Amino acid sequence: MSVTSEIDLTMGDDESECAEEHNEEDILSILVATDIHLGYAENDPIRSKDTFETFEEILKIAKEKSVDFVLLGGDLFHDTRPSTYCLHRCTELLKKYCLGDNPVKIEYLSDPSLDFAFTGNSTVNYEDPNLNIDLPVFSIHGNHDDPTGENQISALNLLASTGLVNYFGKYTDYSAVKLDPILLRKGATKLVLYGLSHIKDERLARLFLHKKVTFTRPEEDDWFYLLVLHQNRANRGAKSFIEDESLPSIINLAIWGHEHDCRIEPEQTRNSVHISQPGSTVATSLSQGESIRKQIGHLQIYKQKFLMTPIPLKTVRPFIYKDLLLKQIDVMQEEEGEFDDEPLSPQALTERVVERTLEKMIKDAQELDFNDKLPLLRLNVLYVNEQQTFNAIRFGQKFIDRVANPKDIVKLKSALKRPRTTNTNTDTNFRDDIIIPNRVEDLVEQYFESHPQEQFKCLAMKSLNEAVAKSVDSNSLEAPIEIVNVLTRNLRIRLEQDDVDVNRVDEYLETLRDEEVDETLLDGILNNFGRRRLNDVSMNANSGSEEETETLSVQNATTSRPARGPGSRGGRVRGVRGPRGGRKKAT
Amino acid sequence: MSVTSEIDLTMGDDESECAEEHNEEDILSILVATDIHLGYAENDPIRSKDTFETFEEILKIAKEKSVDFVLLGGDLFHDTRPSTYCLHRCTELLKKYCLGDNPVKIEYLSDPSLDFAFTGNSTVNYEDPNLNIDLPVFSIHGNHDDPTGENQISALNLLASTGLVNYFGKYTDYSAVKLDPILLRKGATKLVLYGLSHIKDERLARLFLHKKVTFTRPEEDDWFYLLVLHQNRANRGAKSFIEDESLPSIINLAIWGHEHDCRIEPEQTRNSVHISQPGSTVATSLSQGESIRKQIGHLQIYKQKFLMTPIPLKTVRPFIYKDLLLKQIDVMQEEEGEFDDEPLSPQALTERVVERTLEKMIKDAQELDFNDKLPLLRLNVLYVNEQQTFNAIRFGQKFIDRVANPKDIVKLKSALKRPRTTNTNTDTNFRDDIIIPNRVEDLVEQYFESHPQEQFKCLAMKSLNEAVAKSVDSNSLEAPIEIVNVLTRNLRIRLEQDDVDVNRVDEYLETLRDEEVDETLLDGILNNFGRRRLNDVSMNANSGSEEETETLSVQNATTSRPARGPGSRGGRVRGVRGPRGGRKKAT
Repeated sequence: MSVTSEIDLTMGDDESECAEEHNEEDILSILVATDIHLGYAENDPIRSKDTFETFEEILKIAKEKSVDFVLLGGDLFHDTRPSTYCLHRCTELLKKYCLGDNPVKIEYLSDPSLDFAFTGNSTVNYEDPNLNIDLPVFSIHGNHDDPTGENQISALNLLASTGLVNYFGKYTDYSAVKLDPILLRKGATKLVLYGLSHIKDERLARLFLHKKVTFTRPEEDDWFYLLVLHQNRANRGAKSFIEDESLPSIINLAIWGHEHDCRIEPEQTRNSVHISQPGSTVATSLSQGESIRKQIGHLQIYKQKFLMTPIPLKTVRPFIYKDLLLKQIDVMQEEEGEFDDEPLSPQALTERVVERTLEKMIKDAQELDFNDKLPLLRLNVLYVNEQQTFNAIRFGQKFIDRVANPKDIVKLKSALKRPRTTNTNTDTNFRDDIIIPNRVEDLVEQYFESHPQEQFKCLAMKSLNEAVAKSVDSNSLEAPIEIVNVLTRNLRIRLEQDDVDVNRVDEYLETLRDEEVDETLLDGILNNFGRRRLNDVSMNANSGSEEETETLSVQNATTSRPARGPGSRGGRVRGVRGPRGGRKKAT
Repeated sequence: MSVTSEIDLTMGDDESECAEEHNEEDILSILVATDIHLGYAENDPIRSKDTFETFEEILKIAKEKSVDFVLLGGDLFHDTRPSTYCLHRCTELLKKYCLGDNPVKIEYLSDPSLDFAFTGNSTVNYEDPNLNIDLPVFSIHGNHDDPTGENQISALNLLASTGLVNYFGKYTDYSAVKLDPILLRKGATKLVLYGLSHIKDERLARLFLHKKVTFTRPEEDDWFYLLVLHQNRANRGAKSFIEDESLPSIINLAIWGHEHDCRIEPEQTRNSVHISQPGSTVATSLSQGESIRKQIGHLQIYKQKFLMTPIPLKTVRPFIYKDLLLKQIDVMQEEEGEFDDEPLSPQALTERVVERTLEKMIKDAQELDFNDKLPLLRLNVLYVNEQQTFNAIRFGQKFIDRVANPKDIVKLKSALKRPRTTNTNTDTNFRDDIIIPNRVEDLVEQYFESHPQEQFKCLAMKSLNEAVAKSVDSNSLEAPIEIVNVLTRNLRIRLEQDDVDVNRVDEYLETLRDEEVDETLLDGILNNFGRRRLNDVSMNANSGSEEETETLSVQNATTSRPARGPGSRGGRVRGVRGPRGGRKKAT
């Protein structure tokens, strides 16, 4: 019953194209999308439905193309704790499009107890006898929908527990990451699918550097190696991104989530790994990269060859981004003045120029012509004289009912200040005012440096600061609460253990506070509650042998805390310091 | 293939018992539970898993007894917006127990587009061809898991969208409630199942009073009429509860949710309606009613006869409640003094008596012997002399690791103050300090009366106050945010419509603020966003004819606002006032 079709498949290794006749029963057909950010701008009166409409479009395309499965690269949800409406709508859409009678043609070959143990599911969803799945979805988590709380639950766990999504690729051992793939086969094509859900970039970069990221692989050579990950790709400061060249050459294609710019056409690294960066399907910030046309990909794999066909999305709200460098006032007056009887003030002149530019942008948006939604606009006005400034919010009112974001269509900046590099575009890239430091952590540090009298008495600032940063990223207050709880518990244990004299408790607490924070512990607290998988043996990223893994249940990060004391702080990389006062024994 | 069994079924009308031989294929078997409050105390280190364990016990019992379905009386969730973990765990349990190959033996006879339209489901879940349901669950919503937000979504909508629960009985027309039942049949037994999800008690009581609550019923007489509702039953102030006698005589049995005391044995009203109040399955407050053994019910129905068999739950944490009236100091000294060489202070004496009583209570808890969980204790110590008081929290530390709630095992009250009546026991009944007013609304009103300078400039205090009360009930901040949004929008519309002189805006806003709040509008804002069902014709609660209904989609409460003006405020019952300043027209 096999149908033959003509498909151009790009070679994984040399990108040469070959038009061959392939048997459709041998071609794996995958719809690839990432950073859908369900629930983003959910309370915005104009944009509230945007993310859901686009998710539905994606599922519709998957159904129309009869793909074998959908592969998502993380951040399906915008919030760590999505609203009930958001979860309901997501479930409703998945139920509408993923259930049905079309046969699933892919064989699942790996061990579900390894692949899905942390979800509580015992099978891949389309093999569950109680569910009639006909469109399987596989997803990793991103930094927005990462696991939180004592039980380390992600919103994807909820989707997994409904059976509508196969949540995979969660690793919680931060001393080494050993990727165990899902193995799938369709006819002659055999797929090794590695999922690497989001891990703090600094930590993962370090693990790559120390060759602690390893890829378990089958013994035969005839597999296609597909990796999906969700990390910083653009350079956002030393050690806080993953370099393209980190990926080992066994990978044929990596789907890179997290970065919102669409660079879906595969680019090849020196390791001959192809990287496709689909980009987000919604603009969550008004930056240049988000204005690139949003696309998803139709990935077809035949044996070791693949073809990635970009599919522009039609439901995405048009977004036009522009920089406008104003001319000197006298030049503007000369150019604009002749249309008026009385001379305009520099401000009025500027507003006229800006308004004209925005009208042009609206026209550009209309010409995009893929839907009739009110467009998003962002005009960065670079002024050369303070007299050219005006109230951008009040000005935006003129465009109510014509644009989706009247409150922030215009951003005024001095052209004389250091220009910003705007090459990087992720969801964490909101801060574009020059005065504010790059990272929220730096802001907090600055605050405490300038307010020494407000220092914490017992708790370590660094730990709380990391928790605050995580909290900002994930739009949730859980991380700081967790940190405070765990740190307090730890302090209490230390106080009891060390039997401190009641009169010296304050002093002792300060010592504990100033002890250097063990980063492994810190990551443990932030990311590592609940069950985790520990590897017995780590292996080099480029070695190819398979190894046994052992699944352990660790009750709590605090119970697995390494023994501490002067000299026993191995594994820390940053901030080498001399020994401190140590513990004060009570008398 | 029918099996014959002997079952005593209590007659609906006269409670006479008859031991007859019935065909099992004709007996509807239903597991009844209510107020499960999943997620209650989720962050308590000791009690975090309690509600989930009990929910699993309930589902296990349902499976063991092979009931035809589970019927839940609201408040399955404790929070309006349950945590992701809570939703995940709930889904996981439902998936574990409700899917399978056992045949469902009940026929669904009513119109799913009427019963489940608001959930987006087109069938009762066990008729969905894509799901292998073998244990159907039917649930209404309570006041804790009621719909909120612009889209009026309850956590039950999410469960409905997974297909794991049949969410029914949601009515959103507040001028009249016309209950359309689900119709089910098992052999010779035909069931009319009315669901009445939680509605604000004042409103529903008024609708009952004005005979605006009507029950659609089939023409034939041979049905059993079962109602499940979630309202105040105990008298909590005039008009804020539903009287037993409000229920029309067509109802054979009402399952009453919301009240946490277990009164599961059916009680008969003068209308010959039987009422069974299963009570909550978890103690959400340390009140006397919550200390009654928690039970669910196995309801068997054969034609017009029924039998309710209580099933005590074994996973519920033991809870011992006691009042202790202290004796005068001299009597205590006399009674307790002889055991000691040196005389104890009144405080120390009291602590000794209290400690002894608590030890006895722990022993009582152990003797309950249905599980070995640390018990909940609450000892109300009524002192007659201020010298008998002590720090209850520090005192509780003695019982760490022996009780589940060391922080609040003891509550000190003056025996001389007016004693509280403690007959009422719902989840809203937390406030038991005599100084604090009964209702949060009164507290807010008192505050503004004593701080007139802090009055709102534009917004109506009453509306915000109701939103605050709802917010407290539902443990969510959505209601006040909604109210502020809608009121602000309304004010803006009024200001534009009435073209107010800019110099008189403040004055005009005050007039608007002081306008009486239209209660229908207010309920609309709080409860009535999104889709609602409107009835063309209302009918008397006791009349039996059927009527057509029409389903309308109303975009937003504000768009259906009745025309306003002096004299056009019909439908308001409370607070009759003379005409006010009216609108000021700008010049």
